[in-house]
Amino acid sequence: MTSQASAPAYRRLSVEERRSQLLEAALSLFAQRAPEDVSLDDVAEAAGVSRPLVYRYFPGGKQQLYEAALRSAAEELEQCFAEPAEGPLTERLSRALDRYLAFVDQHDAGFSALLQGGSVIETSRTTAIVDGVRRAAAERILDHLVVKDPGPRLRMTVRMWITAVEAASLIWLDEDKEPPLDELRDWLVEQFVAALVASAGSDPGTAAVVRAALVMERPDGVTGVLVRRVLPVVGNAAHLL
Amino acid sequence: MTSQASAPAYRRLSVEERRSQLLEAALSLFAQRAPEDVSLDDVAEAAGVSRPLVYRYFPGGKQQLYEAALRSAAEELEQCFAEPAEGPLTERLSRALDRYLAFVDQHDAGFSALLQGGSVIETSRTTAIVDGVRRAAAERILDHLVVKDPGPRLRMTVRMWITAVEAASLIWLDEDKEPPLDELRDWLVEQFVAALVASAGSDPGTAAVVRAALVMERPDGVTGVLVRRVLPVVGNAAHLL
Repeated sequence: MTSQASAPAYRRLSVEERRSQLLEAALSLFAQRAPEDVSLDDVAEAAGVSRPLVYRYFPGGKQQLYEAALRSAAEELEQCFAEPAEGPLTERLSRALDRYLAFVDQHDAGFSALLQGGSVIETSRTTAIVDGVRRAAAERILDHLVVKDPGPRLRMTVRMWITAVEAASLIWLDEDKEPPLDELRDWLVEQFVAALVASAGSDPGTAAVVRAALVMERPDGVTGVLVRRVLPVVGNAAHLL
Repeated sequence: MTSQASAPAYRRLSVEERRSQLLEAALSLFAQRAPEDVSLDDVAEAAGVSRPLVYRYFPGGKQQLYEAALRSAAEELEQCFAEPAEGPLTERLSRALDRYLAFVDQHDAGFSALLQGGSVIETSRTTAIVDGVRRAAAERILDHLVVKDPGPRLRMTVRMWITAVEAASLIWLDEDKEPPLDELRDWLVEQFVAALVASAGSDPGTAAVVRAALVMERPDGVTGVLVRRVLPVVGNAAHLL
């Protein structure tokens, strides 16, 4: 099982480095196939180490390794939404989405297996890790919206959009990564703007957020382009005014 | 285990009736607690029959009973979206959502367990049943949008909205069924209108659908109210025009 080429490096890694190396090998395997189709043998082989060594680091076996890999992926995903509070909201969101979608692109099969459920390795603990990422992403976005105490309507809008982003990512993987990532990103940002604006209609808290955010938007940004493109489409809704 | 009161009815039911009775008993138990916390004994007791009788109908035990109950719930959910193609689109959607949300309200714990995953009883087969409902709902909605060959952008918009409806239902259950169902329904319809309008900005196929649908909307309907409420909020976006 041990690859000869990497054997010399065997003793040189620290515990933390070795752990990272094994997690990285596991993540890249989970990215290629469903967790239940990855064995500890495969991970040992990919990392160029012996199976007993994998067990020494993850005595709980595959389930433990999977959860550790998941947690490491979760941390990486949460980092995607770390973004300085500068400039128009849609530009910050675009940068966060660029990072998030790059992660989806890189981990495709593993990302699907993780989010679609039905994996034999899924437990209430793994579900909790995934839910933690969703919650963290929602909190980061609410921070950017600069609301001290967001109401239930605004919270629901943000959480629904996050679910929609996940669904769109899965559909995108399923449809051979079409459309190109920058189109998908702009479309997701537009959907967020639309969801916020619609909620603003019946929720004063969201309306205040939208008013403040719109002032910062640039004419050549996503919102400006969206507004100018949408106006002619809704032109024959004059009877609704 | 057999309740004396219901014993006399024991032999009078046909095979189909008995099966329905057991599924109904199972569904109402799954509505109160997670599938893994429901035993065949519980189902037998709730239906007022013996445990061996439950096994005769579902020799595969709990897993088979759960899948059959899930399939029956899936059929019921798919029926929610059956709606005559008459009148404004948002009114049709409102009626479908009323039925869907009533189902969520009635089956609360079971609905959460089903959709949130992480249930020990979840398998790729149960996931496929749930996905089947999502797909069927998307097809019904696309039928109402009267598009012969919906493009990928329109399909994605509809599928994302369906995921968002699911997420909103789970959040609603989680938040002690707040807001009231009619508010939640109107808000979900508004979100659909907003998502379609935003997609229309960059997708000619969706734009054609939106133009045709808007003509049918009534001033006092969801879209009319939304448009009039949103206009003042976006009033300070004049610099984007």
